[in-house]
Amino acid sequence: MYQDRLQAAFDALHFDQPFRVILPDGGIVTHGQGEPVFTVHIKTNRAARDIIMKSSLGFGEAYTRGEVDVEGDMQAVALLSYELQERVLKGSLWQRARYMLGFLTRRNTLTGSKKNISAHYDLANSFYQLWLDTEMQYTCAYFDQPTDTLEAAQTQKMDLVCRKLRLQPGDFVVEAGCGWGGLALHMARNYGARVKSFNISREQIAFARDRAQQLGIGSDRIEYVQDDYRNIPKHVESCDKFASICMLEHVGRESYADFHRLVAGVLRKQGLAMLQFISRTNPSPISNPWLEKYVFPGYYNPSLGEILKPVERDHRQLHLIDVENMRYHYALTLRHWLERFERNADRIRAQWGEEVVRTFRLYLNGGLADFKHGAGTLVYQVLLSNGFDNSAPLTRHHHYAAASKAPTPALEPA
Amino acid sequence: MYQDRLQAAFDALHFDQPFRVILPDGGIVTHGQGEPVFTVHIKTNRAARDIIMKSSLGFGEAYTRGEVDVEGDMQAVALLSYELQERVLKGSLWQRARYMLGFLTRRNTLTGSKKNISAHYDLANSFYQLWLDTEMQYTCAYFDQPTDTLEAAQTQKMDLVCRKLRLQPGDFVVEAGCGWGGLALHMARNYGARVKSFNISREQIAFARDRAQQLGIGSDRIEYVQDDYRNIPKHVESCDKFASICMLEHVGRESYADFHRLVAGVLRKQGLAMLQFISRTNPSPISNPWLEKYVFPGYYNPSLGEILKPVERDHRQLHLIDVENMRYHYALTLRHWLERFERNADRIRAQWGEEVVRTFRLYLNGGLADFKHGAGTLVYQVLLSNGFDNSAPLTRHHHYAAASKAPTPALEPA
Repeated sequence: MYQDRLQAAFDALHFDQPFRVILPDGGIVTHGQGEPVFTVHIKTNRAARDIIMKSSLGFGEAYTRGEVDVEGDMQAVALLSYELQERVLKGSLWQRARYMLGFLTRRNTLTGSKKNISAHYDLANSFYQLWLDTEMQYTCAYFDQPTDTLEAAQTQKMDLVCRKLRLQPGDFVVEAGCGWGGLALHMARNYGARVKSFNISREQIAFARDRAQQLGIGSDRIEYVQDDYRNIPKHVESCDKFASICMLEHVGRESYADFHRLVAGVLRKQGLAMLQFISRTNPSPISNPWLEKYVFPGYYNPSLGEILKPVERDHRQLHLIDVENMRYHYALTLRHWLERFERNADRIRAQWGEEVVRTFRLYLNGGLADFKHGAGTLVYQVLLSNGFDNSAPLTRHHHYAAASKAPTPALEPA
Repeated sequence: MYQDRLQAAFDALHFDQPFRVILPDGGIVTHGQGEPVFTVHIKTNRAARDIIMKSSLGFGEAYTRGEVDVEGDMQAVALLSYELQERVLKGSLWQRARYMLGFLTRRNTLTGSKKNISAHYDLANSFYQLWLDTEMQYTCAYFDQPTDTLEAAQTQKMDLVCRKLRLQPGDFVVEAGCGWGGLALHMARNYGARVKSFNISREQIAFARDRAQQLGIGSDRIEYVQDDYRNIPKHVESCDKFASICMLEHVGRESYADFHRLVAGVLRKQGLAMLQFISRTNPSPISNPWLEKYVFPGYYNPSLGEILKPVERDHRQLHLIDVENMRYHYALTLRHWLERFERNADRIRAQWGEEVVRTFRLYLNGGLADFKHGAGTLVYQVLLSNGFDNSAPLTRHHHYAAASKAPTPALEPA
């Protein structure tokens, strides 16, 4: 029965790469001509049923349980999974409704966000150290050349953010969502900024504080605050610059107006705000159900229009001055992460188990395929200004010129 | 009576510059302390009534009729006029309704657009030659330095457009709204592109064709088509690049979805579209009533969100890859235009009359004040891609590097 349904589904596909599926009873379903780019082995009837009933969600679940194996190009599998989800195997109505009910329980309320963020980011700092760069930047890097090292590209990303923000010695920066604190360190050490960084991940904040202490950077220069971005006004009256690098994905589409009010409220006149976020070409109520349920609970990637809407509704003069689409940079970033991850797969398996290996392998491959082959996923850097500033540079040359980088200030420890 | 109402209105103002108004009966109304930056002389009762009843619309009408004179800073007068319109003297309900009815008669239907465009752009080529640059660019220039000449800045703007579009020899470009044809010439002569440019202004098209002929550029390289942008699909099946420089202001807010469909339909896969347009921080049903009624009938400056909305609704993969806000560049451009205009005011008065001098003086000063001091007016360059293109440059360096400019192709006449 599965064989017929799957064969019918594959026949209806617009998917230009040949592949092969081995079913639980040994039956083989094929798609396309020539050497298959991957073979998916569905080992149990439960797995086959899950794929048919729950589409990519069911596939992901069966894969992480080890009831599905993949040989060959994992990114092509991820692309196939999206294609099936979008067009052929949408999952049963009941399963979709069940997922939506689950999604609602993962909403980003103050307590919900804590749970959602903790689920992913509190896994273990030592786990992420095995496959991120040395500065622990868990966001899209910026490659001057595709051959740049991950370390170079992450530093270039931080410099690009600082230059776009025209960061000056003494500037007070508020950062909403700071990961392991790397950008704040970069801003304080290389641009002489004072930074207050917010994060609700216990593990990340602990790591960031330790690192700042080791580097001899006191709380007069960086303060890592373990609190929700919504509470920023309780801690800060006004700032010169605002940065939020890949945190908007965890805000939720019901909260962009609140997020905007927060930025507009805290940013001083002529201040600049940099928002970097994973985005979509078209808004969609659900992103990737498996990813949302098992990797980033409650995540939603906003379109640029969704972020712009509250900005244009509010007459407080926050307005857009620059947008850069960095889609391909995320494909390059994910390729580095994936290489490092696979190099350490055995260590990760030994310490965190096979399920973690399979979950992250599927997520990293899926993300890479998505950014590389364009399933509608983008990443933007959006620069906003609070009111008009005629002292701003005329052109964007300062985004690039190394000369525009502020000198290391005197308060840097010897 | 006017004196009391005007004095009350001025007292309620948030306007930080002192000024003085002389009323028809010789009475004087003042605002602020110190030397007035301007004096407005309202010479007739009709003018005073028009200002009170129709606000900035009435002021503009009275000024062009010569029933109001201004001594001093004309840009400050324009700012005051907006301030009055926005907050204090909104005009009577009846006058506002009357204006809105008039606005509806100036809608951008196929015949309406012809009339609207003709009203401004068909005034006389020789008129615009007196105050535009030699390439007759009637759109925002791009200044590397604020001291650049207008000629240099307009060439830099055209190069910036060509570089952002990654224009290659042999590329086929469709241009919606081409003014006097300067950008098409630049693309053909300096980048080896073939261009089909659309415009409904009879005078501009005639000028453009004459100029191309004088330069020996045949219709195999540039074709200037006197037709509405909505008819582009009747003339073109597919193009590599699409450019529309300051034409969207004449499209009207009811037509952005149609405009988007047109671009998405005609642009080939991996093709790029450049839209440059005057924009607003916040969408508003009416822009400047006087400007709309007397200078640019039917104009409407879209917000970025209004342009983005149909792009994000349509799943045909047109998506945004770059936005640059060039607000201050338009202030610099207008300063050049205004200087040249004033230098030629006597000639213009002799040939086209005092009313034309006063209309354009008010419009140019108003625009300059608007872009400079930030009454919510912006100008954007928005770059769209039709589908994902992994052969695109990783960074934006090619927007700037002179080296990226394509060599002059062999088909250039000797």
